[in-house]
Amino acid sequence: MSTNAPPLLHEIATLLDRLARTGEGGNVQLYGLPLQPGDYEALQEALGEGEISAELQALGPTQIRETALYGVWWITHRNGEQEVVDESIEVTRCPAILQTPAEDVAEAALALRKRLSVATKGEHDG
Amino acid sequence: MSTNAPPLLHEIATLLDRLARTGEGGNVQLYGLPLQPGDYEALQEALGEGEISAELQALGPTQIRETALYGVWWITHRNGEQEVVDESIEVTRCPAILQTPAEDVAEAALALRKRLSVATKGEHDG
Repeated sequence: MSTNAPPLLHEIATLLDRLARTGEGGNVQLYGLPLQPGDYEALQEALGEGEISAELQALGPTQIRETALYGVWWITHRNGEQEVVDESIEVTRCPAILQTPAEDVAEAALALRKRLSVATKGEHDG
Repeated sequence: MSTNAPPLLHEIATLLDRLARTGEGGNVQLYGLPLQPGDYEALQEALGEGEISAELQALGPTQIRETALYGVWWITHRNGEQEVVDESIEVTRCPAILQTPAEDVAEAALALRKRLSVATKGEHDG
């Protein structure tokens, strides 16, 4: 195995232990790490591919893939030119980026109520 | 608007209110409903498309798409022949199907620890 993959895997194991014990996981930043040739591939091979893959479309695409290790997610942010601008491994039961912020839920509830009341009013008026 | 879409949208609004207020959402089953022609399209049009889409590969593919209404997710299960076998709208901050079960995390932590200890032992032996 490459030089850098084993310490990263040990860090992931520590975070997984903590997630299993306390419910709190953590994050391993990959982008900006001085990874050597082969490190990236060794890490991908060790973690494997899971059953869930997701994409978020914002300014650029973000790919979120669960690895074959349950609770270990590989997250890659790209900009509009498809260049990787951030990459990390998140150890969690559900990555924050896949969770709707609480304040957005309140906003959606209001928006839908408003739309339905306009629709009902329109029916009554017509 | 079609006959069945408005009551479904009202049900979704009630669940969104509850999610915003208490953190607990709910589920609207679509599969098996006697939807009339146009109901499905009217519902899709009213909910719109959001930024997150995910896929889970198990026996068949499951598609999970957040709608333009934050916290409202459209979930379609297909079998190996690509036939829809279940379809529902989930009102939640994160669909259960995207969350790693707690017991799987403990299993993954053990599996990774075991693999790392075998790798370390291998290095010491070699």
